[in-house]
Amino acid sequence: MKFCSNCGGAVLSRVPPGDSLPRHVCDACGSIHYVNPKLVLGAIPEWEGRLLLCRRAIEPRYGYWTLPAGFMENGETAAEAAARETLEEAGARVELLAAFSMISVPYVNQVHVFYRARLLDLEFKPGVESLEVALFEEAKLPWKDIAFRTVGVTLKHWCADRARGTFTFHAEDIK
Amino acid sequence: MKFCSNCGGAVLSRVPPGDSLPRHVCDACGSIHYVNPKLVLGAIPEWEGRLLLCRRAIEPRYGYWTLPAGFMENGETAAEAAARETLEEAGARVELLAAFSMISVPYVNQVHVFYRARLLDLEFKPGVESLEVALFEEAKLPWKDIAFRTVGVTLKHWCADRARGTFTFHAEDIK
Repeated sequence: MKFCSNCGGAVLSRVPPGDSLPRHVCDACGSIHYVNPKLVLGAIPEWEGRLLLCRRAIEPRYGYWTLPAGFMENGETAAEAAARETLEEAGARVELLAAFSMISVPYVNQVHVFYRARLLDLEFKPGVESLEVALFEEAKLPWKDIAFRTVGVTLKHWCADRARGTFTFHAEDIK
Repeated sequence: MKFCSNCGGAVLSRVPPGDSLPRHVCDACGSIHYVNPKLVLGAIPEWEGRLLLCRRAIEPRYGYWTLPAGFMENGETAAEAAARETLEEAGARVELLAAFSMISVPYVNQVHVFYRARLLDLEFKPGVESLEVALFEEAKLPWKDIAFRTVGVTLKHWCADRARGTFTFHAEDIK
């Protein structure tokens, strides 16, 4: 049972007039409550060829390694969200470079976007959502302990692009 | 006054423990109702150097021209959303090519993403949200009657990239 955020009435699943899909419609006031995918924004912070990863202190994937990333907030740009999450999770200040990957994950209703980034100093330290933060050489990236598939895919593209000498934007899906 | 979608209780603005921003928190059950930016997905459908635009039959910007685009739905990928909106608004079937632009619009809490696309046939026709649909040569694009700044920015990048002979990805903000 769900309730209407506008009037507190009961929300039912129903196809509104002119629409093609069932929506959450309030039985009392008629409000339609759309539910849309969420954006997760992150960075790929680099320092002299090494990449900064965070080991997660929270579920899901407690103890696994990830790029700093999190839900974009209202009122900020994609780049601001990536820089904020990097500061919150890794205590790291970065200069954001180009957008690098955009990966749809329809089974969790998310789109993950990562920017390349240049770490500005080595004063990073774990935020409350991280157990530790560390720089990894490409040959020592913890491939078997990566928290999320979007992070693994992004790291693979980064390594391949770096080997080729050119970074390009990658848009793809994980289904 | 807002109500909790989980229990129907009163929702207040409050900073939850461990957080740094005020959230919509239910005074009765404690649920936190996060509000995040929405993704708008669209296409830049091309046919022999001409671009397909739709003239809007709905507000906002009734009567102005736009690329086919709309809110991404749960359960679909970014590319699927772009193709669906193109079919819904322009009755047009496309082969989606590369992601082309990603533009943050923080003052409306949206991120707009456009894919380049190849129109598969000329059987397009306006959907219920469009007054008309037409192909425009680059020299005849209706610059003064474009509905949204993200569409104008995307069209400008498309024309500049085409003149240069190379299409690249563009990430930017409108503030």
